[in-house]
Amino acid sequence: MGDRLKHDQEFIKKKNQILILEIIQKNNRRISRADIAKMTKMSPASVGRIVNTLIETGLIKETDQQSSGVGRKATMLECDVQSLLAIGVEVDRNVIKAAIVDLDGRIITEAEKKADNSANCPETVASRIIDLIRQLADGQKVELNKFIGIGIGIPGIINPDTGEVIISAQLKWKNERFASLIEDKLPLPVVLDNDLKVKALGESSYWPKSDETKTVLVSVGSGVGSALVDEGEIYRGANNIAGEIGHSTVNPDGMLCECGKRGCLQTYITDLSLLQEANQVRPVHHVEDIFEAMRNGETWAYNIIERACTYIAVTINNVVCTYNPDRIILTGNFIEHHSDTFEMVRAKMKDFIWEPFSGTFDLSRSKLGENSVRIGAAKLVLQQRLKQGLPLD
Amino acid sequence: MGDRLKHDQEFIKKKNQILILEIIQKNNRRISRADIAKMTKMSPASVGRIVNTLIETGLIKETDQQSSGVGRKATMLECDVQSLLAIGVEVDRNVIKAAIVDLDGRIITEAEKKADNSANCPETVASRIIDLIRQLADGQKVELNKFIGIGIGIPGIINPDTGEVIISAQLKWKNERFASLIEDKLPLPVVLDNDLKVKALGESSYWPKSDETKTVLVSVGSGVGSALVDEGEIYRGANNIAGEIGHSTVNPDGMLCECGKRGCLQTYITDLSLLQEANQVRPVHHVEDIFEAMRNGETWAYNIIERACTYIAVTINNVVCTYNPDRIILTGNFIEHHSDTFEMVRAKMKDFIWEPFSGTFDLSRSKLGENSVRIGAAKLVLQQRLKQGLPLD
Repeated sequence: MGDRLKHDQEFIKKKNQILILEIIQKNNRRISRADIAKMTKMSPASVGRIVNTLIETGLIKETDQQSSGVGRKATMLECDVQSLLAIGVEVDRNVIKAAIVDLDGRIITEAEKKADNSANCPETVASRIIDLIRQLADGQKVELNKFIGIGIGIPGIINPDTGEVIISAQLKWKNERFASLIEDKLPLPVVLDNDLKVKALGESSYWPKSDETKTVLVSVGSGVGSALVDEGEIYRGANNIAGEIGHSTVNPDGMLCECGKRGCLQTYITDLSLLQEANQVRPVHHVEDIFEAMRNGETWAYNIIERACTYIAVTINNVVCTYNPDRIILTGNFIEHHSDTFEMVRAKMKDFIWEPFSGTFDLSRSKLGENSVRIGAAKLVLQQRLKQGLPLD
Repeated sequence: MGDRLKHDQEFIKKKNQILILEIIQKNNRRISRADIAKMTKMSPASVGRIVNTLIETGLIKETDQQSSGVGRKATMLECDVQSLLAIGVEVDRNVIKAAIVDLDGRIITEAEKKADNSANCPETVASRIIDLIRQLADGQKVELNKFIGIGIGIPGIINPDTGEVIISAQLKWKNERFASLIEDKLPLPVVLDNDLKVKALGESSYWPKSDETKTVLVSVGSGVGSALVDEGEIYRGANNIAGEIGHSTVNPDGMLCECGKRGCLQTYITDLSLLQEANQVRPVHHVEDIFEAMRNGETWAYNIIERACTYIAVTINNVVCTYNPDRIILTGNFIEHHSDTFEMVRAKMKDFIWEPFSGTFDLSRSKLGENSVRIGAAKLVLQQRLKQGLPLD
């Protein structure tokens, strides 16, 4: 009982802190301690205590403005925008990208570094991330410890609680305590998560009422995966591998997958699988070449793209049957780099979506494009820090 | 902001009420108002106010016992077990079953009524439910308004907010405001939900730490479906049709489904689909006959059962890839009435479960058997009433 009780007390305390921070954020420079007490029906003493904590941690500050109404003049409060900046980072095989992101999910400034064949070395990647962050902070003249934290999206299976990369096939990492490599060098907390999960968080936050809706991101490109954001929260499952649909079975008698099983979804729609098929016909090195052949009227190319779109429509149906989302965001190179595929998939969907689900969700493309992982990673670190409860150390 | 704020205040108030009720429940007859104030660090006045509300609503009462420690003697509090009883009901095509269920999910007493071909008529079903409930309450000598509420599990697509059956293929109902048919006649709130969803809630609550785990129920029989219970809460999706995997696509070139699409999961594993296949060989009227033929060494029968088990294993893999649960409960007539199928499915799973998921979940059979829908429905109504916040009217 003791633990549960403590948990509940902490929960209420944090809820109150976040509530007051949100009130100030939304009524920037137009609200006083007394106004907050009135709005929240909390005691003036409690509001005063929480406001002081927020000021001490640098999240808000008092303004020069005073209330102009009757009675004693009161000092207005405002968010210290500089203190509500987070750093979002995206790591993939080829490039490391970092950005300073504000509370509203806008990129303030950004920088990137090519991986130069060193993506396999976690220490090198970490030191490049550190360089990028220092460079961004210097450029903005913000002291490092003023940032809320660093969010990093990485392809693979991630344990966000320990900051560990359990396995990343793309980076060829296994059991790397990557967050601590950066935390050891920078005075900032690091939150690590799977790239698609933070991407989904970023994309979902683009839409209004994102904390009341269920958004599923489906990505098709070098890999295939999905992620559910359930009312503003990433759905992780028991081991943070929910949504790893690349090895869901779409045909138990189907083609053999690299994992050794038959009929895995990824054997039908990833770049590699399309290229393997194309090479049955003639040597092809890039997916783009298949698209070009299709545009030139070559049947084999059309057949490959057409089947991939069929399986993407199947994937959407299966994701809809399990998650029943309000919105699906279809993304990844196969969709984003080839403008015709989105409409092909949409047309195929009518063959596979079960009638009671039709009209229950919107299908759209990425709105944040290549910024989405960094924006989502920054959102995540902000979300996590607020959940841990202020003060931010 | 106003709405959000009010929402948060209400939330905290309800949390406190539930917290105090739980404390009393767990320290039955051994705890006083002062003890609760000490444990929760809430003011004695707030605790007193909440305790009095709980007493007024009949959920707890004062005992004769007094604290024996030093200082002023204090009255101890206890849960009024009779006030924490709910009624759980299961409706299907053939039978209506009702039970009085206590706070711990135990059935106190039960009764049932055959549907006698009247399952298609919501009014008749409602009046039979009302008769059953009156009969149960009379038998236990509990006044109706002492129950927390009535939970009902029904096959089909249900809107639990409005108590409406959107569509039930099994009962042949469409847009029936079923909850109100009962609420009009009985002084109790009615919570309606999909039978598999409440079954999942019931089954998951059997296991320890159910409010920290993710449990997926997969049911195979006359239909096929799944339901996720995420840390004690039913995952509903946007329209309460999450988990309706009967029309997920397991083979885009597969057999035509009654819904008009190709390769729906249900075309491979429901009773009807097995019978249709069997009838290619010889007239067969019951799934049991296929099992008997298999036991007699007939190859066609083995092939039918074997393929069904393959597709169930595929289904488990696909559910695991999306939901990443800690536990899967495999249920439904195909599993429960035929003891060999569970082990066949388990053996097949090694062909389909992707390696990173192996060992991440337990697979088990139903623990509550035919009681699970009623126990789950009773749990749901209790959960909902607590969430709406005490007082319970």
